[in-house]
Amino acid sequence: MTSRIRDLGIEIGRMPTGPENTICDVQGVKVGHVTIDEGSIKTGVTAVIPGEGNPFREKFIAACHVINGFGKSAGLIQIEELGTLETPIVLTNTLSVGDCLRGLVQHMLHVDEGIGSSTGTVNSVVCECNDGYLNDIRALKVEPSHVREAIESASARFEMGDVGAGKGMSCYQLKGGIGSASRAVESGGKNYTVGALVLSNFGEMEDLMVDGVKAGREIHRALYPERLREQGSVIVVLATDAPMTSRQLKRLCKRASVGIVRTGAYIGHGSGEIAIAFSTSCRVPHDSSCHVHLSPVSDDDANRFFRAVVEATEESVLDSMVCSSSVEGRDGHIRRSLADFTELFLKGC
Amino acid sequence: MTSRIRDLGIEIGRMPTGPENTICDVQGVKVGHVTIDEGSIKTGVTAVIPGEGNPFREKFIAACHVINGFGKSAGLIQIEELGTLETPIVLTNTLSVGDCLRGLVQHMLHVDEGIGSSTGTVNSVVCECNDGYLNDIRALKVEPSHVREAIESASARFEMGDVGAGKGMSCYQLKGGIGSASRAVESGGKNYTVGALVLSNFGEMEDLMVDGVKAGREIHRALYPERLREQGSVIVVLATDAPMTSRQLKRLCKRASVGIVRTGAYIGHGSGEIAIAFSTSCRVPHDSSCHVHLSPVSDDDANRFFRAVVEATEESVLDSMVCSSSVEGRDGHIRRSLADFTELFLKGC
Amino acid sequence: MTSRIRDLGIEIGRMPTGPENTICDVQGVKVGHVTIDEGSIKTGVTAVIPGEGNPFREKFIAACHVINGFGKSAGLIQIEELGTLETPIVLTNTLSVGDCLRGLVQHMLHVDEGIGSSTGTVNSVVCECNDGYLNDIRALKVEPSHVREAIESASARFEMGDVGAGKGMSCYQLKGGIGSASRAVESGGKNYTVGALVLSNFGEMEDLMVDGVKAGREIHRALYPERLREQGSVIVVLATDAPMTSRQLKRLCKRASVGIVRTGAYIGHGSGEIAIAFSTSCRVPHDSSCHVHLSPVSDDDANRFFRAVVEATEESVLDSMVCSSSVEGRDGHIRRSLADFTELFLKGC
Amino acid sequence: MTSRIRDLGIEIGRMPTGPENTICDVQGVKVGHVTIDEGSIKTGVTAVIPGEGNPFREKFIAACHVINGFGKSAGLIQIEELGTLETPIVLTNTLSVGDCLRGLVQHMLHVDEGIGSSTGTVNSVVCECNDGYLNDIRALKVEPSHVREAIESASARFEMGDVGAGKGMSCYQLKGGIGSASRAVESGGKNYTVGALVLSNFGEMEDLMVDGVKAGREIHRALYPERLREQGSVIVVLATDAPMTSRQLKRLCKRASVGIVRTGAYIGHGSGEIAIAFSTSCRVPHDSSCHVHLSPVSDDDANRFFRAVVEATEESVLDSMVCSSSVEGRDGHIRRSLADFTELFLKGC
Repeated sequence: MTSRIRDLGIEIGRMPTGPENTICDVQGVKVGHVTIDEGSIKTGVTAVIPGEGNPFREKFIAACHVINGFGKSAGLIQIEELGTLETPIVLTNTLSVGDCLRGLVQHMLHVDEGIGSSTGTVNSVVCECNDGYLNDIRALKVEPSHVREAIESASARFEMGDVGAGKGMSCYQLKGGIGSASRAVESGGKNYTVGALVLSNFGEMEDLMVDGVKAGREIHRALYPERLREQGSVIVVLATDAPMTSRQLKRLCKRASVGIVRTGAYIGHGSGEIAIAFSTSCRVPHDSSCHVHLSPVSDDDANRFFRAVVEATEESVLDSMVCSSSVEGRDGHIRRSLADFTELFLKGC
Repeated sequence: MTSRIRDLGIEIGRMPTGPENTICDVQGVKVGHVTIDEGSIKTGVTAVIPGEGNPFREKFIAACHVINGFGKSAGLIQIEELGTLETPIVLTNTLSVGDCLRGLVQHMLHVDEGIGSSTGTVNSVVCECNDGYLNDIRALKVEPSHVREAIESASARFEMGDVGAGKGMSCYQLKGGIGSASRAVESGGKNYTVGALVLSNFGEMEDLMVDGVKAGREIHRALYPERLREQGSVIVVLATDAPMTSRQLKRLCKRASVGIVRTGAYIGHGSGEIAIAFSTSCRVPHDSSCHVHLSPVSDDDANRFFRAVVEATEESVLDSMVCSSSVEGRDGHIRRSLADFTELFLKGC
Repeated sequence: MTSRIRDLGIEIGRMPTGPENTICDVQGVKVGHVTIDEGSIKTGVTAVIPGEGNPFREKFIAACHVINGFGKSAGLIQIEELGTLETPIVLTNTLSVGDCLRGLVQHMLHVDEGIGSSTGTVNSVVCECNDGYLNDIRALKVEPSHVREAIESASARFEMGDVGAGKGMSCYQLKGGIGSASRAVESGGKNYTVGALVLSNFGEMEDLMVDGVKAGREIHRALYPERLREQGSVIVVLATDAPMTSRQLKRLCKRASVGIVRTGAYIGHGSGEIAIAFSTSCRVPHDSSCHVHLSPVSDDDANRFFRAVVEATEESVLDSMVCSSSVEGRDGHIRRSLADFTELFLKGC
Repeated sequence: MTSRIRDLGIEIGRMPTGPENTICDVQGVKVGHVTIDEGSIKTGVTAVIPGEGNPFREKFIAACHVINGFGKSAGLIQIEELGTLETPIVLTNTLSVGDCLRGLVQHMLHVDEGIGSSTGTVNSVVCECNDGYLNDIRALKVEPSHVREAIESASARFEMGDVGAGKGMSCYQLKGGIGSASRAVESGGKNYTVGALVLSNFGEMEDLMVDGVKAGREIHRALYPERLREQGSVIVVLATDAPMTSRQLKRLCKRASVGIVRTGAYIGHGSGEIAIAFSTSCRVPHDSSCHVHLSPVSDDDANRFFRAVVEATEESVLDSMVCSSSVEGRDGHIRRSLADFTELFLKGC
């Protein structure tokens, strides 16, 4: 794996990280990628597996929050209503949501023969950003089969940067993509983990902040990029092993925006910003025969978890950038890696 | 067309209908169906075309409302944020949302070469109900090409009942499907139309009310149906030529539930109930060069429009039932037409 | 107590009621009234006590839902965020919310010396309807002390109709006010109660439905009332002893509108419709030292609770009307009791 | 007036300010204070007058957004539903919302004789923060008459810092209070102003950022304050003369949180964060006889307005701090002014 932001000596926030400093520090979470990189096609699929077993039969307590709704993600309405997640979370480009939905439905029908026959249907969750600056997004090159491929390749160790759904993404007019981080949280005498994974694709270069340093101004002076109408977005997936109700998880989602803002952006008009959070602590059976017993963490400790979300999200965005290589995509469009400009901001950090 | 509820002498509410008493009484609105009826496959696609021209370049002011979010519709988040509709509204079965999204994206890429190349992406709206009682929904027989077929076949005159997306739907454990109605509304000295189209798939038989008469009790006594765990849903599309802001249209959406409730249901747990409303009065250009001038109807007249929504929605549900034939689907499952039981409730109406 | 709707032989719905068929069938709930009836002053205060002890130190899991936000209730934002109720719920007229807030704050400061000194502040919940048709609402005759008086007089047996906050309210252009009902619900092998209390002040006469019978049309023909611009509202308080999360309680709140709609109204523009629900099952300590253990009822049984809410709310509205006497208020304005017109609709029920 | 943050050489953001760099740069907006400073009583009332004339008869298009709902503000529900503001916005301490509601209702009844007699009631907007660290909030020293006094004293030139409702507020464990700023925005060839006013009362010292500089860490090292459980909040009032729909204004409100976050906070659990925005461009008549004609600014220019909101809010928070003197309140509690610590962070800015 390429260097991460922490390898540059930049420590975001004040809380301790988990052992790998990724979302997979939350036990059971896995991440898989399929990258499609053929000429002007720079896109892919990333799947976040929330935990072991059949998520339809043993659901995860979950929540989501739309920070800015200029986006096309699917599956959020039911999470909002029922507070549960029953499939992996699939990330891809904006125009491929349909294909990924098809692929995720097929996968779930394969996993569970009762869906749509002996029981109800399944709520498949697919989120997206628009990678159309680098990727020939009109070519619709993501296929349903890529979803299963991403799911089956998922592991607790995964690449970051310009991989999977992140292959063609742009962040602060530099190269964005997949980033992840985690924080350790103590509450009620127990140790928990909060992990974040972002698909970053937002922001104007001049606004980029790296741990308080106005790095974007310097890089902008060096590059003088064309000022493009921002068409960005960002998806934040949050995982925790702490027991939480969906109300509590929704409040975590709302703090994802704080982490994003700390990197300099301001929730731009065209930036579809969406957060989904789930807890691995207590599975909700599809069948009502067995009961859920929940001892949620106290709201008095909410700030510890909020701070963990903020720090992990901020660090994930920065990792999504420094872990990416520079990429040339369609029509000669190029996104440089933040890693190329470390000398411009490291002194200030 | 088969008989409608009004042909049975039942007049819902007190407001006058439009000339055809369908959503297409709103000038420019068209509806197209593709019905898939092959053995145990009873499903399809219905497209509602909001008006003439390219909806991406000249958007419709719109709103949506999730009455109960146990549903998998796509495209609502952006309507909520931006208050505009930029594609036809496509209806289908729950597990085919992905295929219809793919089809609608392909259609829009065909309509507009700028999408995803010289400008941003497109927000495709696909709503669904679960027709799995009659339809072998796991077979995933809806294909992307059906969307374009439905759009191209759209007309201001269209079939109701067990057609298009309505082919396999159930309502009050009888046959549901597509229904539509309209009302004429006067406001500020001008005449407007409010139209509704429903995809009905909800409710328990005993609860069915026809214009205040507890028809469901009588039919239940006659049929003694198996009491199934309700897995229903209903989609309500509302159109008007009255100038309205998205805030006003959202308030129309909320009254769709009143029309549904008047037919006896109570927004059941498993019933994904969603309403989308759009106005044809004032198109919003994709390019900001020209300005929108809006003179919305006064909120003082809101009740006239609310009542129109309620009456048109209630009548649409009833029409979706009486216009349907009885249908036998997968595994010998049968849904009878409400039209077969008129003698059981007409005397009370 | 005057006759209730059930005494007229009208049974709403099909579920069994609790022993008293009021919200106080939920153990620990009490209701108190202060009625102010002096010439053109027809108003008052009603307090719903959610349970024993200090609600600030041992909070109730709660939720609220704004059906239509043309209203001035206070305290809902924090219920929405934190999912807890920490004071009695006080009902009054629209312009007296401030005085009741003052009174409720004073009461809570008296109950708990730590509020605002050793710990945070308190979220006081005051809801309202506009009784200005009968009451000289500009006179602002409700005083902070009335809140404490209402709370201290609270009991599990309470008057309905034109009492307390209901003194001056109008419903379907007849006399409205306070009504209440309850239903017994079985879930997971246990027996629970759902109770409702309404402050009714909404609707146009012609729309009134009594158990499916279009009673309003008949009464309208008899009375020919002036058609007033509707300025109504309705507050619904729901209580249950079933263990529920705030997400589940919010879904109960949404079904309150179904009960209202079944009496004929359509969520009019000017009708501020708000529901608050709380569970007495599991108290949340203000201090985080002790943990909450929650085994919420299964969502699979949600429909039983939804139906209970619908039936209890519908019956509460009707009780608020038949339990009221006719009242003459300011400027000779008169609201007749529904009880005066039973012969016009009983034959149809 | 004491020095503002800009007087220290710190320029927040990159957009030009209005002439006075306050919310009153939006033509017609005025601000008035009543400060109550008697021993352990450190509190008050601040009124924001949205414009000339009777706001009830000619309403302002408006919106609000609850960033974090741990708060007790009143009047937001109707703004959300109807998208209009019809009174001044009054700010005060948490336990005095009731008294200020009473005072604002009395004021409006005085302004308009039709309220509650010939027409409906009025939606009074009162927002709050908890000043209980410095102020003996249990004493309930704010009286209804203070509201009218604040309104009548309102002017386009007003004090900032520890005045009015800001008298007892704390921000980042330093002295907070009232701050304000503005930005000039060009859109569609026209020049507009966006103004912000904050009542600041949130944050932990170590988190304070001044224009990217981690000032809080330095000050914390100097002061070693007791780490208190945060009980903060912040109210942001936004005004603009640009024509906007309530949907657009709501999006402005959401960006207020970005400005807050840029000063270092992370939307803490106990921090009730609420934003209200109104436009002075187009008044909505209470009577429906005359029509509203609206030409809202294009969403394509949304980012200009968002950036203006972010910069003005960030600067308002900093001004609320540097314009405050140090204050000693109840029980010897002291909040120091940020102005005392400029040498600790100015070098980094």
